[in-house]
Amino acid sequence: MSSHSIRELFYPESIAVVGASKDPMKRGFRSIQKLLEDGYAGAIYPINPKEPEILGLKCYASLGDIPGSIDLALVCTPAKTLPQVIEQCGKKGAKGAVVLAGGFAEAGDDGQRLQDEMVRVAHAYNVRIVGPNTSGVFNTHKACNIVGFSNLKKGDIGLLSQSGNMALSLVTEAEANGHIGLSTYVGIGNESDIQFNEYFDYFAEDENTKVVVAYVEGMKNGRVFLDALRRITRRKPVVLYKSGRTSAGRSSAKSHTGALAGDYAVSEGVLRQAGAVLARKSDEILSLAEALSLLQPLASRRVAVLADGGGHATIAADALSEHGLTLAPLSQETRQRLSAILPPSAAVANPVDVAGGTDSNPAVFADCASILLEDPQVDGLLITGLYGGYGVRFSQSLTPIEMQTSMRIAAMLEARGKPIIVHSLYGSLYSDLRPAPLTCIREAGVPVYDSLELAVRCMQGLAEFGEAQRRPLAEAEDHPVRSPAFETVLSSCRSEHRTVVLEHEARQALADAGVPMPAPAILARSPHEAVAAFERLGSVPVAMKIVSRDIIHKSDAGGVKLNVGSSDGVRQAFENIVANGRKHVQDPDITGVLVTPMAPKGGVEIIIGVVRDPTYGPVMMFGLGGILVEVLKDVVFRSLPLTEDDAHRMLAEIRASEILNGVRGAAPTDKDALVRLMMGISSLCSAFPEIAELDLNPVLAYSSGVAILDARILLEEVSAVTPQ
Amino acid sequence: MSSHSIRELFYPESIAVVGASKDPMKRGFRSIQKLLEDGYAGAIYPINPKEPEILGLKCYASLGDIPGSIDLALVCTPAKTLPQVIEQCGKKGAKGAVVLAGGFAEAGDDGQRLQDEMVRVAHAYNVRIVGPNTSGVFNTHKACNIVGFSNLKKGDIGLLSQSGNMALSLVTEAEANGHIGLSTYVGIGNESDIQFNEYFDYFAEDENTKVVVAYVEGMKNGRVFLDALRRITRRKPVVLYKSGRTSAGRSSAKSHTGALAGDYAVSEGVLRQAGAVLARKSDEILSLAEALSLLQPLASRRVAVLADGGGHATIAADALSEHGLTLAPLSQETRQRLSAILPPSAAVANPVDVAGGTDSNPAVFADCASILLEDPQVDGLLITGLYGGYGVRFSQSLTPIEMQTSMRIAAMLEARGKPIIVHSLYGSLYSDLRPAPLTCIREAGVPVYDSLELAVRCMQGLAEFGEAQRRPLAEAEDHPVRSPAFETVLSSCRSEHRTVVLEHEARQALADAGVPMPAPAILARSPHEAVAAFERLGSVPVAMKIVSRDIIHKSDAGGVKLNVGSSDGVRQAFENIVANGRKHVQDPDITGVLVTPMAPKGGVEIIIGVVRDPTYGPVMMFGLGGILVEVLKDVVFRSLPLTEDDAHRMLAEIRASEILNGVRGAAPTDKDALVRLMMGISSLCSAFPEIAELDLNPVLAYSSGVAILDARILLEEVSAVTPQ
Repeated sequence: MSSHSIRELFYPESIAVVGASKDPMKRGFRSIQKLLEDGYAGAIYPINPKEPEILGLKCYASLGDIPGSIDLALVCTPAKTLPQVIEQCGKKGAKGAVVLAGGFAEAGDDGQRLQDEMVRVAHAYNVRIVGPNTSGVFNTHKACNIVGFSNLKKGDIGLLSQSGNMALSLVTEAEANGHIGLSTYVGIGNESDIQFNEYFDYFAEDENTKVVVAYVEGMKNGRVFLDALRRITRRKPVVLYKSGRTSAGRSSAKSHTGALAGDYAVSEGVLRQAGAVLARKSDEILSLAEALSLLQPLASRRVAVLADGGGHATIAADALSEHGLTLAPLSQETRQRLSAILPPSAAVANPVDVAGGTDSNPAVFADCASILLEDPQVDGLLITGLYGGYGVRFSQSLTPIEMQTSMRIAAMLEARGKPIIVHSLYGSLYSDLRPAPLTCIREAGVPVYDSLELAVRCMQGLAEFGEAQRRPLAEAEDHPVRSPAFETVLSSCRSEHRTVVLEHEARQALADAGVPMPAPAILARSPHEAVAAFERLGSVPVAMKIVSRDIIHKSDAGGVKLNVGSSDGVRQAFENIVANGRKHVQDPDITGVLVTPMAPKGGVEIIIGVVRDPTYGPVMMFGLGGILVEVLKDVVFRSLPLTEDDAHRMLAEIRASEILNGVRGAAPTDKDALVRLMMGISSLCSAFPEIAELDLNPVLAYSSGVAILDARILLEEVSAVTPQ
Repeated sequence: MSSHSIRELFYPESIAVVGASKDPMKRGFRSIQKLLEDGYAGAIYPINPKEPEILGLKCYASLGDIPGSIDLALVCTPAKTLPQVIEQCGKKGAKGAVVLAGGFAEAGDDGQRLQDEMVRVAHAYNVRIVGPNTSGVFNTHKACNIVGFSNLKKGDIGLLSQSGNMALSLVTEAEANGHIGLSTYVGIGNESDIQFNEYFDYFAEDENTKVVVAYVEGMKNGRVFLDALRRITRRKPVVLYKSGRTSAGRSSAKSHTGALAGDYAVSEGVLRQAGAVLARKSDEILSLAEALSLLQPLASRRVAVLADGGGHATIAADALSEHGLTLAPLSQETRQRLSAILPPSAAVANPVDVAGGTDSNPAVFADCASILLEDPQVDGLLITGLYGGYGVRFSQSLTPIEMQTSMRIAAMLEARGKPIIVHSLYGSLYSDLRPAPLTCIREAGVPVYDSLELAVRCMQGLAEFGEAQRRPLAEAEDHPVRSPAFETVLSSCRSEHRTVVLEHEARQALADAGVPMPAPAILARSPHEAVAAFERLGSVPVAMKIVSRDIIHKSDAGGVKLNVGSSDGVRQAFENIVANGRKHVQDPDITGVLVTPMAPKGGVEIIIGVVRDPTYGPVMMFGLGGILVEVLKDVVFRSLPLTEDDAHRMLAEIRASEILNGVRGAAPTDKDALVRLMMGISSLCSAFPEIAELDLNPVLAYSSGVAILDARILLEEVSAVTPQ
């Protein structure tokens, strides 16, 4: 289907308002009023068979009566009229329609049918649909606002929202702020036709949008969403708020990984992986967007703090640390230069406290800022305290000095390319009370916050976007090779109507996928074979585990014997295991007993798993094993396929990651081996979408190499397996 | 010493300004100007030998020349003049002096000597001192503002700050807010005479102060601070921000507990124990104080959410959960009553979403609020969304309805005693733009926030204060009995110049202190005694551990043998252990070998310890044992003595507390046994201040009872032990 670029919907040369009205309370009136007020330059065609004119514009009985062509239709009529209206739009050659009405998919089966019908017609006529059930769209750069939001300032932040009220919140916050402007808004609505991904692609290209804000409740197709997010975040920051964090985990999941895959934990991992700057609180969304629209990303996490009081210096240091930023160590030279211009009581280590050194001459702020930004260890600067309010606090004669200082500091943005953020306690004062130097420095491109923590959060956002931009590109999506051996396993699973891949089969599959399998595992079908396996393994102590499609919890079934060290012992263990299995389940299908050398002592217990998330598709979980981690849910997620960078970040992102570096004198674990293991699992699961869940639990990670102590693979229900 | 009540410093009938000036930049001018401006009703006496008058007031050459008496002296002269000025204050009968000058204890040894001299004079003349190195004090209810802060609104929040800039921040924020008023301010300064505790006691009594805000960097005497905090928080909320969270732990501490006692972790535990509402961010301090000054504390953590849009409803639910609050389950009746007045698409389970049911009639908000507050399961109400802005958003004709609705909702505060908080996206609009219904409802006592998360944080603050008020009173400080047996141990430690209490001595001390010691531990001094002990214990498998003042890390020295099960084995183990000890250290003093029955398998590994915090004195730590907890620092602290309530809260407050309730089918651990153990340790450490550090690590907690696997006690260095 050759569809219209959705750009034409945001830059329409003509708009028809279907369901135009003379009632000032109705959208069919208010949007026309707003277009006229804002001076929209294109043609506006009200459609209403009962009115001759609305707001001075000639009214048409139907779309077909319009003399010219139309780019966009705003449809204000009820749900049931839609298929017909869209057909008329199509016949008229409209490129898109914004459908406000509710009563579609969100309202149950009948609504879903109506929506499907509308979309069918739209596709037939190549009309792109925004919504239905949307608050509308605006583009301040085209003076095209059919939402009706007032007091919009033109700017460079694009807004995508699944909640009309959240959009209104953000617009109102921008209005209160006075400095923040918006470029474009889309109420996502039901995503019946155009979905998040197309809007992301549009924003990536839109020359008037520098930063995108997305309020996301759910998504129709998580993989497609992530792909588009990955594309746009290479070029522009996306501040994303994902709501619905506290819903219960997937209690139906069968695997350990599934049970730990809380919705938000998965979203958090995969959205950050795709490059989003995730807002954790709704009240930081717009400030993050503002900082990202004004400033370069941070090149590292090293920040200098310039304070004019000990209290703010201390709070800033605390907040930086809590946000994962570090106080840049200052060079000897930097400290000497600061000492030369500050009083003896000043602190010239980071955080820098001028200790009254600016009271009579706030220009010293710019001198200090310049010195700090010249230090190659410093990648960003946070100014905190009274800056901008010296005229208010001390003497009005200082205000002109502060104005010049503001211009000097703002000029450093350009010169050094390092972000500068100001926290000022006078930032909380509005309108006529707000000191002019703060307005001046903000207009020159340095954001000003009245909350010190918010200023630090925004600095963190700049670091996050910097890291997202520097992340290595995923290798071109390769076509993973399906190993014939695992194809055979799948065939037998299908023919045997089982979804449980037996452990020896799983181990083979992993080995085939290039997962380094440190220890051989031999399936023994008789006591005799078990002894032979034992001897083949060098007669070292072995672990023996039952292999049966009917027994999932092997230990509970008495199906595991550890540290078996003699031929006699192995024979006896085989018989015990099989006998226990028979006692445990009625007439079980016992394939045999797996014999493996005991894993070396020590090592850090790890769990690695894959589940198919209903939204995002296959995602990998990484965490430390053991009961504590389960309780503390200290696990991280990424969508597959994984890059090596993703895998390394997963190791670093668990809260207990310090353990992997070696604590209490332990040697560091072999992170490269873990990464290789994770990459292999990623390949296997990419090659075989039939794999529903995979658990390696536990894996022991040593200072050199890893050992997989248990491997479980569950397949999609046979009926769901790709039909051949 | 009968000292003046410090109340007289805050309600002075006369003020002398020592170092009064005609220079408008100087405090000696500005404070007089401010007192006059504000209409201070008492007498003002400028002191300056060179001026005949200042700001129309007669100037005196010295304090002695003043005709009347003076209550308070504001001293603006430099540090070196202070002893003499205080002496003059004393001779004149001044009750207090506010000393602005720096250059005292904060400036080094000379300054410390000057400060000591000043305080000596002050004590001799019974003059109370605020500061030195302070920004000053104000009391809006006496129109007595010698700080010079402008635009102060009279109110009921008292402010204690160790940073002048933080005080200025909070005052400026209150000014920007427009609704928040302050009663009293004190710049703590160097606390040379009056310390935090006296200010807390003063605020507890002050009829004009309902809530206290304290910005604390450090404290001179942590125990006294905590005692006063405990007293005031029985009567009034204290919102406390403790800065300096990221300083390194006490690397010098010898015990495990000491190493984990990060400064902030200890502060957090003991300050909350004493009833403070701890602000974690500087930008939430004033909002918390506002909520606590307006509203009753929450009776439980169950809150109802009333939203007019799905976005805000979802974000509110997420935020409540992240703040440890719960969505109150609504009764059948409540839901039916809501259904009766809301459209069919409304959500009548908590969070309630009116789904347009208020668009044409915002009075429905009050109807819903009333229904929700009548539900006995609901203890607090959060209204979130567009409330107050219906006139702006929809039609001006709705504004009068919203005004009435505001009054109706505010009246429910009184009627039900349950807190109500409003989040409104229109709360971000200031001055002339802010909708009148929001101003109206705030003035009627319902706080309004423009941040949904901040609204929820304030609700959480109300829950925290409620819990602090409901906590059981500590039993009257009993005089713990010093057991003669441990006195004997102390004597031998002293005579042997050792600070290590041997394990068998430590176990005896714990038993004497009433700690239930589940298993006997027998010290054997020979292989023969070891066998006898083994037999006395019933010939069950035993653990054997070396007892030697010279060997701290017993395992490393080969000094531990586990699971020894025969007389021969015990004999051999004894000999091995002693031989290993001799190999490990040159000529060790080996007391013997401790023989204990092996602890039962299973159980949750716990660490309990006590250290003497340099600020707060003895504090107890509780956490789960093991390496993960060490890395994740999942431990909590309380100051001693402990109440049973404290101990129970410690069990509940660790992040992994779920483990104590039993996970993966395990039985819950015996919390009562843990609490008894903690109470016993508390008694022991209270009775014996000689104990510097105590570590029980690990303790195994079973479904019934506990086992202490290792007990270590370190004494203060002998020279530091109480001299007899």
